[in-house]
Amino acid sequence: MSVSRELFPLVLVDIALFCVDQRGLRVLVVRRADEPEKGRWALPGGILKPDIDVSLQDAALRVLREKVGVEIPHLEEVCTFSGPDRDARGWSISVLFYALLPRNEIEAVGKKKVEALDWSDAARPAQKLAFDHAAQLRRALATLRDKVERHALPLHLMPEKFTLTDLQRTCEAILGRELDKSVFRRRLKGSEDLLELDEFERGAQRPAQLWKARVGFQFAV
Amino acid sequence: MSVSRELFPLVLVDIALFCVDQRGLRVLVVRRADEPEKGRWALPGGILKPDIDVSLQDAALRVLREKVGVEIPHLEEVCTFSGPDRDARGWSISVLFYALLPRNEIEAVGKKKVEALDWSDAARPAQKLAFDHAAQLRRALATLRDKVERHALPLHLMPEKFTLTDLQRTCEAILGRELDKSVFRRRLKGSEDLLELDEFERGAQRPAQLWKARVGFQFAV
Repeated sequence: MSVSRELFPLVLVDIALFCVDQRGLRVLVVRRADEPEKGRWALPGGILKPDIDVSLQDAALRVLREKVGVEIPHLEEVCTFSGPDRDARGWSISVLFYALLPRNEIEAVGKKKVEALDWSDAARPAQKLAFDHAAQLRRALATLRDKVERHALPLHLMPEKFTLTDLQRTCEAILGRELDKSVFRRRLKGSEDLLELDEFERGAQRPAQLWKARVGFQFAV
Repeated sequence: MSVSRELFPLVLVDIALFCVDQRGLRVLVVRRADEPEKGRWALPGGILKPDIDVSLQDAALRVLREKVGVEIPHLEEVCTFSGPDRDARGWSISVLFYALLPRNEIEAVGKKKVEALDWSDAARPAQKLAFDHAAQLRRALATLRDKVERHALPLHLMPEKFTLTDLQRTCEAILGRELDKSVFRRRLKGSEDLLELDEFERGAQRPAQLWKARVGFQFAV
């Protein structure tokens, strides 16, 4: 059946893809290759395709695959943004997700259907973002921080093997503040998601024990 | 412009409207007057109308007004449900909200564009719900409980004046467990949202002081 376009809102997904590198918590921004807002920086996003996507989450995974060539292990819904004026194409809904990328996979991300990409400071992005993406980024960051404040371990950000100090630094990068080491270690003791390895990382002073995440761990509190 | 319907998903809003009455935490369910799932019980919901709604939240407020004749003071988004098979009309997205109704406004709710309505046990609804609404209700309840566990005060559920015992019973009804009175009172002392009145409720034993919510209070933690 044929119907008027005006009766149907445009449905989009946008993704705040976070990683932690040596500079701290970063978010992926892309320079748009197409109108609207062509040439401007934005969170990666795209239009839902009901003929190929089986859910909104599936659409978000596809968009990341198509635009920046990355397969994401973890994605969480934040909230929707909607209204007649947020996109020049008309009444639109954007469903915002955030995703966590392991440090060792940052190199795998590359521009595909975008003009350029950058890992920007998540709390103070260098670029002025298109649409309502600055507000979207703030909401995604607040949701991620809230979860880590509540003691969820962001193991999706870690490489396969890591030290507990490394994990603490990652949490600190997300929260933007230092954590007390002994309190943090006590928190870890209660986690069933960490597995101790019989391997050590050679550090400057003394070798630090390596750990890995249990298969099937949850990013839950 | 005219386009194929298949390219556009159906966009709906559904609302878990909670109240606390003498039986405990209840949720509004309605018997559907129209296909699909005509005659079955469901959460109140409806199709987004881009020509009159200015946001998804606005659509949810309109649906409650049109179907059960109630103006809601408070609404929060929970998450989306999406996919090709959840609604017989085709690929659909439902954006789920929960809303809190003050006890003294329960009587104002009445059937309008629905065949019947009922205030069902929120944790164990008597009716088998249509679509994926049983899962929606569980998610909405979990989100509400999580917020109250984290010490948000559900003042939207209270009448204009209430006792602190009454507020504690309301929190207990949501959580499904008893709270320690002295811990609960300490929590209230830290709240800037409660205003002490120079009025008392005559109880069985001794008069209990009445309180009210500060104008513009937030349901925040």
